[in-house]
Amino acid sequence: MEPGDAARPGSGRATGAPPPRLLLLPLLLGWGLRVAAAASASSSGAAAEDSSAMEELATEKEAEESHRQDSVSLLTFILLLTLTILTIWLFKHRRVRFLHETGLAMIYGLIVGVILRYGTPATSGRDKSLSCTQEDRAFSTLLVNVSGKFFEYTLKGEISPGKINSVEQNDMLRKVTFDPEVFFNILLPPIIFHAGYSLKKRHFFRNLGSILAYAFLGTAVSCFIIGNLMYGVVKLMKIMGQLSDKFYYTDCLFFGAIISATDPVTVLAIFNELHADVDLYALLFGESVLNDAVAIVLSSSIVAYQPAGLNTHAFDAAAFFKSVGIFLGIFSGSFTMGAVTGVVTALVTKFTKLHCFPLLETALFFLMSWSTFLLAEACGFTGVVAVLFCGITQAHYTYNNLSVESRSRTKQLFEVLHFLAENFIFSYMGLALFTFQKHVFSPIFIIGAFVAIFLGRAAHIYPLSFFLNLGRRHKIGWNFQHMMMFSGLRGAMAFALAIRDTASYARQMMFTTTLLIVFFTVWIIGGGTTPMLSWLNIRVGVEEPSEEDQNEHHWQYFRVGVDPDQDPPPNNDSFQVLQGDGPDSARGNRTKQESAWIFRLWYSFDHNYLKPILTHSGPPLTTTLPAWCGLLARCLTSPQVYDNQEPLREEDSDFILTEGDLTLTYGDSTVTANGSSSSHTASTSLEGSRRTKSSSEEVLERDLGMGDQKVSSRGTRLVFPLEDNA
Amino acid sequence: MEPGDAARPGSGRATGAPPPRLLLLPLLLGWGLRVAAAASASSSGAAAEDSSAMEELATEKEAEESHRQDSVSLLTFILLLTLTILTIWLFKHRRVRFLHETGLAMIYGLIVGVILRYGTPATSGRDKSLSCTQEDRAFSTLLVNVSGKFFEYTLKGEISPGKINSVEQNDMLRKVTFDPEVFFNILLPPIIFHAGYSLKKRHFFRNLGSILAYAFLGTAVSCFIIGNLMYGVVKLMKIMGQLSDKFYYTDCLFFGAIISATDPVTVLAIFNELHADVDLYALLFGESVLNDAVAIVLSSSIVAYQPAGLNTHAFDAAAFFKSVGIFLGIFSGSFTMGAVTGVVTALVTKFTKLHCFPLLETALFFLMSWSTFLLAEACGFTGVVAVLFCGITQAHYTYNNLSVESRSRTKQLFEVLHFLAENFIFSYMGLALFTFQKHVFSPIFIIGAFVAIFLGRAAHIYPLSFFLNLGRRHKIGWNFQHMMMFSGLRGAMAFALAIRDTASYARQMMFTTTLLIVFFTVWIIGGGTTPMLSWLNIRVGVEEPSEEDQNEHHWQYFRVGVDPDQDPPPNNDSFQVLQGDGPDSARGNRTKQESAWIFRLWYSFDHNYLKPILTHSGPPLTTTLPAWCGLLARCLTSPQVYDNQEPLREEDSDFILTEGDLTLTYGDSTVTANGSSSSHTASTSLEGSRRTKSSSEEVLERDLGMGDQKVSSRGTRLVFPLEDNA
Repeated sequence: MEPGDAARPGSGRATGAPPPRLLLLPLLLGWGLRVAAAASASSSGAAAEDSSAMEELATEKEAEESHRQDSVSLLTFILLLTLTILTIWLFKHRRVRFLHETGLAMIYGLIVGVILRYGTPATSGRDKSLSCTQEDRAFSTLLVNVSGKFFEYTLKGEISPGKINSVEQNDMLRKVTFDPEVFFNILLPPIIFHAGYSLKKRHFFRNLGSILAYAFLGTAVSCFIIGNLMYGVVKLMKIMGQLSDKFYYTDCLFFGAIISATDPVTVLAIFNELHADVDLYALLFGESVLNDAVAIVLSSSIVAYQPAGLNTHAFDAAAFFKSVGIFLGIFSGSFTMGAVTGVVTALVTKFTKLHCFPLLETALFFLMSWSTFLLAEACGFTGVVAVLFCGITQAHYTYNNLSVESRSRTKQLFEVLHFLAENFIFSYMGLALFTFQKHVFSPIFIIGAFVAIFLGRAAHIYPLSFFLNLGRRHKIGWNFQHMMMFSGLRGAMAFALAIRDTASYARQMMFTTTLLIVFFTVWIIGGGTTPMLSWLNIRVGVEEPSEEDQNEHHWQYFRVGVDPDQDPPPNNDSFQVLQGDGPDSARGNRTKQESAWIFRLWYSFDHNYLKPILTHSGPPLTTTLPAWCGLLARCLTSPQVYDNQEPLREEDSDFILTEGDLTLTYGDSTVTANGSSSSHTASTSLEGSRRTKSSSEEVLERDLGMGDQKVSSRGTRLVFPLEDNA
Repeated sequence: MEPGDAARPGSGRATGAPPPRLLLLPLLLGWGLRVAAAASASSSGAAAEDSSAMEELATEKEAEESHRQDSVSLLTFILLLTLTILTIWLFKHRRVRFLHETGLAMIYGLIVGVILRYGTPATSGRDKSLSCTQEDRAFSTLLVNVSGKFFEYTLKGEISPGKINSVEQNDMLRKVTFDPEVFFNILLPPIIFHAGYSLKKRHFFRNLGSILAYAFLGTAVSCFIIGNLMYGVVKLMKIMGQLSDKFYYTDCLFFGAIISATDPVTVLAIFNELHADVDLYALLFGESVLNDAVAIVLSSSIVAYQPAGLNTHAFDAAAFFKSVGIFLGIFSGSFTMGAVTGVVTALVTKFTKLHCFPLLETALFFLMSWSTFLLAEACGFTGVVAVLFCGITQAHYTYNNLSVESRSRTKQLFEVLHFLAENFIFSYMGLALFTFQKHVFSPIFIIGAFVAIFLGRAAHIYPLSFFLNLGRRHKIGWNFQHMMMFSGLRGAMAFALAIRDTASYARQMMFTTTLLIVFFTVWIIGGGTTPMLSWLNIRVGVEEPSEEDQNEHHWQYFRVGVDPDQDPPPNNDSFQVLQGDGPDSARGNRTKQESAWIFRLWYSFDHNYLKPILTHSGPPLTTTLPAWCGLLARCLTSPQVYDNQEPLREEDSDFILTEGDLTLTYGDSTVTANGSSSSHTASTSLEGSRRTKSSSEEVLERDLGMGDQKVSSRGTRLVFPLEDNA
């Protein structure tokens, strides 16, 4: 054992003879074993000794064998996904709704996991290991001298000493085990970006306040409540002698944080299919997207709280504020990173004519979105969170600058990536229940956790809804609250957070529990969504038609709600506004949820300055900026704004104030706006045209400038005659 | 040093404390350094000793720092690609054609390489290494005991002992250096698959014989000639004392193999833009796609030849035949894998109604195509080659079964992947010229290589063309031969093959030379394409319009060549058939290149059996199969075939025999085929309609059944009234 001072060569390339074709795709997925092609047969120019040649051959054979196994393991997953796709097609074809593709992926994963666990022989580790002792600290690189040849090793991680001999050496199980960071750095980003990119929904922005409240306050409350309840459970376990290792208070809080990330993918899929209420959809989707970000940052902050003292029970004010500071720092930093990259992309796509070349445009879009992740990670923020906000920014600004082809290309690209990544994670979850070798099943903890997440969700949905309803014009009805309560599924994010660190006993127990919670919620709640929807009397068939299969006429029709017969029978429990049958009764709901001054400020800033700067739409800056910025304004305003007589692309009308704002600041375009919308509608029905006009006028009257004057909210959810193409 | 018998724990997951966010994206790209988050702060449950906590903190910091650097390096590449995209947009916008995006990517890569090389300080390796000696052979896993804690290390590769101390430790340079297998396993597959998937061109199949000849014979000849010439150069260098290490004959042959992979991406891009002659395009593109596959397998076979004897000069018949056997085995195996996966995908997409859900369909398509690669690698064949044939099969069969949306989705998905991967490789090449630290610049070898590749290409293009012209109805004119000679660019494949193994002196010299050859050919030949085209009088503006920007009328127009005025002035050097102004003179060219019996057999087999089995088109199997297979035929034939009155989807008419065949076997649909085509054309001009009809009749007469009867070739390249949508 000689801690040598040999320097490591500059590049690690002195490897790889052609015959052992090394598979880097497993590596791309963080495959457990990363045996590099060890010796190169034709290397070093020296005449090969027989013995060393034999040795090399053996190493090569081993590498090739390992490579083959890697391929087989990846093939297993591909097979799983293929099976899932085919079965889900069958289900969709037969309109079976009780099982979502993610649930199915888990089932297939479980089956394969059982087969791998009990069907394959427990080999005794063909790859022999050796251990060398060393007094110093661990280095990231190791140079080993084997009979005169130097081999380079890289650090993979620490191994808890107790486990070294106790674990079965099953090659296949090891092969199908991923590096946990894969989930965070490869599989989650496309999922999260897609969520952000598809958030460009009018209903999301209309409910922004409530969504933020649920996501931030709700997650914090839920985390705290679950953490404390679980601490009680842990205490109980300690008393009962069921706990074999340490379990700190911060561990409980950490569990609260990771399990607070909801992922109602199953519920939302059914909502989509049944065209359930769009506002409820927006609330659920928005909450789940944002609370993922909150949960990530929260869990990092809780971990950061830990090292302050060994007695982790005691409340340490300094550590607490440090944690809060870290939370705010990471969150705002990631947010900024995401927003900045999005804005840069918007500027680039605005000021170049890249839209003539959709391929270049799409590639640029992809690269810029990816760079957000890297940028955030490079700066020490959280890439996944940055990617989320980047997605939102891209959807809000860049999307408007893209060519029609690039719009569908980028959407489809990320849709496919999202689909594959999501199903991959869920099938891996199924697999992990049997192949993960450090499960700690603790019935008390598991039951406690189920109770805790139920109480935690109840304790934030109902009180928060109550407070929000005080300020909301559209009340969140009881049935909506129950549905939100019911939709507290856990999914990919909770799993990825839990698997990230399974070194300690406490973390292993959390991981096992999280896995079971995900299984239970996805299967049971997913299957129960349709009955629950009808039991709660939530209106379905609202027909939020997708752009593809609906022509413009239909679109107008449903959007504007021209024909009252088409509306489902009003439902007393959902948004009150639907009941408002006249200006007077509506005026009673004197609320200002969406028109709260802070949001109003942002809306008008966005519409008057950001949109014109970053996209080809909105009022020209020359009219919104003060006169002394004339030159700058002229440079930044795209000629299209002056040229085109359609004042606003539809994509821009997703804010409730847009049209009204326009009136205030850029007088003559309002006429055009109304003109164009009514001309559109005229082609469908005259009555529609009239209704459209009147509703835009209402908005105009209600939302703009005249903040105090509360007006009719009748028909508000049908405000915009034109729908965004997103 | 104690070679312990400690077993390796089943999963390598006991790692990763949340704070050091490990970036696996660099890992996905095979980043040099793969330091895992070493110690987890909250692990093991044991009370942390102060010293070990400090140590862990240091390791964490280091890991975080390394992670940050990884992000920065990847960001560098993304910046490079973004810059390339923006600049290439500018070039396209201004119609600058002398520099292709790949050339530009290389230039930017070069610039960044220079900056990294000379602009960053040569740090002395912050990651300290230690060496421990060991008598036994190298293991793939190492367990290191550091003050009671166990750390796991994985083998990265051998390091040639001379290099250990001699290399500068520049972190940044090391960071931007990839694992060479990345190119083969991550970047090449999408490029090659895309090439195969976009091969669905009528002109490719019409020139299949010549393309195969160029690709197989041509590459073999080129490899042999270059190998021998280079052996002469090496001998010369030895005499002049310029060679400091061994350089065997097989090394020379290996160089011949890797440098024979042409990649005329620049030329083809200009052809596309200028709408140069489609047959020349097909010849060049087809040759370059297939010779990549040949070059890969050839180089593997040559490596397999090596171990037979230490005296690698002597001809060893056994080893030679072994090599030939390996070549045939790998090639046919990979071909089979690719074709089988393609066929399975076609069957699945045919017999399920997956096309109702384009997302599922696209995901399935992607997974199946990826599984080809893995399957081939798992069976010991070459994944890249398998992917190529899978792409061709998918385009030929599966594509017809896909929904319209999935068609564009899959094409666009692979187009983006291809674009990113290709430009990434080229910018990496630029970077590698300065950052790769083991360059061996040998002027004599480089000059010799340039001469050799010139002679090697000349020695296969001209003689092969001569022999092919003996059998071709459409002669390959002198100007086409010169253009093919000129278009012998080297690109991504040669680079990927060269960088795969740079362990020995000979290989390093080859790598450097390959890099320079790629630079030279891409810049000089790429820039000279447009002048060369006009100098060689090759017709441009042939208008092979893309589906997007051409309406049906235009299409018919150019396709069928209705209006002779639109044809560029005939050119004596190009295909003779263009000159054939009457049935009599054309009859003189009694050739049977495209109608050679083997191809004819395949065409009719494909049309009568494969297409009906694998797609929804073609004649019903009930008519083509013998009566006793009636039941099977009914099961396999899709109802659409009987139902739809449009007899053939356009995608299926890419074989020269299609329509004629149809007549023979499925009588009444011919009328429809002609009817539909003439009705199409009727909308453009009456004369066109007549011409179309007569030309289809000619084909019918010429190609079908009556193999011996040679007929007019007038207008043959304008045979099909309908063009494939691919």
